[in-house]
Amino acid sequence: MASRVPTFTKTIVPMLDRVLVQRIKPQQKTASGIYIPEKAQETLNEGHVIAVGKGLITSEGKVIAPELKEGDKVLLPPYGGSTVKIDNEELLLFRESEILAKVL
Amino acid sequence: MASRVPTFTKTIVPMLDRVLVQRIKPQQKTASGIYIPEKAQETLNEGHVIAVGKGLITSEGKVIAPELKEGDKVLLPPYGGSTVKIDNEELLLFRESEILAKVL
Amino acid sequence: MASRVPTFTKTIVPMLDRVLVQRIKPQQKTASGIYIPEKAQETLNEGHVIAVGKGLITSEGKVIAPELKEGDKVLLPPYGGSTVKIDNEELLLFRESEILAKVL
Amino acid sequence: MASRVPTFTKTIVPMLDRVLVQRIKPQQKTASGIYIPEKAQETLNEGHVIAVGKGLITSEGKVIAPELKEGDKVLLPPYGGSTVKIDNEELLLFRESEILAKVL
Amino acid sequence: MASRVPTFTKTIVPMLDRVLVQRIKPQQKTASGIYIPEKAQETLNEGHVIAVGKGLITSEGKVIAPELKEGDKVLLPPYGGSTVKIDNEELLLFRESEILAKVL
Amino acid sequence: MASRVPTFTKTIVPMLDRVLVQRIKPQQKTASGIYIPEKAQETLNEGHVIAVGKGLITSEGKVIAPELKEGDKVLLPPYGGSTVKIDNEELLLFRESEILAKVL
Amino acid sequence: MASRVPTFTKTIVPMLDRVLVQRIKPQQKTASGIYIPEKAQETLNEGHVIAVGKGLITSEGKVIAPELKEGDKVLLPPYGGSTVKIDNEELLLFRESEILAKVL
Repeated sequence: MASRVPTFTKTIVPMLDRVLVQRIKPQQKTASGIYIPEKAQETLNEGHVIAVGKGLITSEGKVIAPELKEGDKVLLPPYGGSTVKIDNEELLLFRESEILAKVL
Repeated sequence: MASRVPTFTKTIVPMLDRVLVQRIKPQQKTASGIYIPEKAQETLNEGHVIAVGKGLITSEGKVIAPELKEGDKVLLPPYGGSTVKIDNEELLLFRESEILAKVL
Repeated sequence: MASRVPTFTKTIVPMLDRVLVQRIKPQQKTASGIYIPEKAQETLNEGHVIAVGKGLITSEGKVIAPELKEGDKVLLPPYGGSTVKIDNEELLLFRESEILAKVL
Repeated sequence: MASRVPTFTKTIVPMLDRVLVQRIKPQQKTASGIYIPEKAQETLNEGHVIAVGKGLITSEGKVIAPELKEGDKVLLPPYGGSTVKIDNEELLLFRESEILAKVL
Repeated sequence: MASRVPTFTKTIVPMLDRVLVQRIKPQQKTASGIYIPEKAQETLNEGHVIAVGKGLITSEGKVIAPELKEGDKVLLPPYGGSTVKIDNEELLLFRESEILAKVL
Repeated sequence: MASRVPTFTKTIVPMLDRVLVQRIKPQQKTASGIYIPEKAQETLNEGHVIAVGKGLITSEGKVIAPELKEGDKVLLPPYGGSTVKIDNEELLLFRESEILAKVL
Repeated sequence: MASRVPTFTKTIVPMLDRVLVQRIKPQQKTASGIYIPEKAQETLNEGHVIAVGKGLITSEGKVIAPELKEGDKVLLPPYGGSTVKIDNEELLLFRESEILAKVL
């Protein structure tokens, strides 16, 4: 459950206000080192921001810079987002306004 | 049914105009000290604001500051909101415009 | 069927352009003093405004002051509104634009 | 089938761009004085404007004055509108933009 | 199948950008004078404009004058429009933007 | 499968940003001159622009001139458009923004 | 699985902010040269931009230039897009805002 942001072999530049997020994997062992079966593992709604787009373009053509940046830890909404597979890792693309909160 | 705002081990910064709310728990004992079974407890639509975002960004890129602040007691809508689990406590994230009213 | 606006033990400040309304109760006795069974009582779509919010915030961040004020008698839409319970009394929260008319 | 606008014991002030309309009742007798059974009476989509609101408020907070006025004869849409009962008379509240046409 | 615009005993003034249209009736006789049974008659999507409203009001309160005028021959959309009965004649009210094209 | 734009006995002026399009008919003979049965003919999503409207009117009342012009070859969306029959020929009316692409 | 952008016999100019994309074909042979049956081939959500439109026209009539250009490698959304067949090759047309990300 490392907080480190991994590096991928491809550079993904999200379009507009999209953010590329990697879901934090649930604990696979208990504190005492016993493996938790996959079904009993909790789904976590936390993720790390891998990349952010340039920002939303308003109807007047102005760019609104994103609030999030690479490395931010975020709370993800229970639904939504597009799944993409990069280096055999499932990542998620969200519009920034869908991200619920930043975790400090 | 304390009015005190609890502290969490993580700092959650809601995105945009979102507010993080903790629902007030229904009374678990009667006035005379008898425990009320969970099914007979009333669901309360009141909550305490734990954290607020920076505010909504208008289509012109202007930030509208939130009206609510940490510690406010609010009336919650019967539906909507995203549930997040922090320190084993279920919290709710609402857009500020979904909050029905402030309770003074 | 008093026209008096009751007072509650809690002060509710509706958010934005919301109005807190108390539905006027249907007549429970006939003119000659006979009680009307609850099922035969007519549902009234009239109510009294208990409290109003500061007003809607436009997409430019300007506040539009509400047209209604505390004590106004209003015609309610047949659907919509959020029910809240205050002092064991069922009250309704509507967006001001949902209120059909003012009754003078 | 009088064209006269009736008076009610209550003054209704429609909110925003709403108009209070009384549907014109279908003919209940033939020209020769024979009563037409209620089922055979035609539903008319014409009505008289009883009252109009101050007008719609634009997203910039400007009021757009209504085009209709008390006494206007109008063509009503087949659906929509909210029914309200005033002095045992069923009246209808429409947004002005829902009214199809004015009849001169 | 006259191209003449008929006159009605009532003057209908469509609201906003609405246009009052009379659908062109399908041919009821063949070229050689034989009557075509009603079921075999083709539905035509052409009509004549009987009356037009003042035009749409923009969200800034500006009136956009209609492009169509009384007497114009138009192509009607297959769906939509509100049917009104005037002088026992079925007429249609459309928003001007629903009209597909003008036929010269 | 001529690329020529046919002429019709009626002049159709599409309203607003609508474009009148004639779908290009699929090949009816093979290269060697054998007729292809209608069911085996491919539906083509290409068409020729027969006429264009004056352009869309913005909410401020400004006209946005169309990008397409009479004679343009276009890619049509698989759904949408209104079918009209002119001179026994089925034509299609689309909003210009529904047209996928221009073919040079 | 060449990264080269193919050339087509027809020039397609996407309308507005549309982009013409060719989906990258999944690997048809394993590293050791064995053919993978079509059903076992993975669907890839990557594509190459073949052509881009002039850009979206705002409601004020201003053109917003596209961010993507011919040759860009992009991540495609799992749904949406219009399929067109050019030179017996299935291509896709997307609105630029539907494209998830650029791959560098």
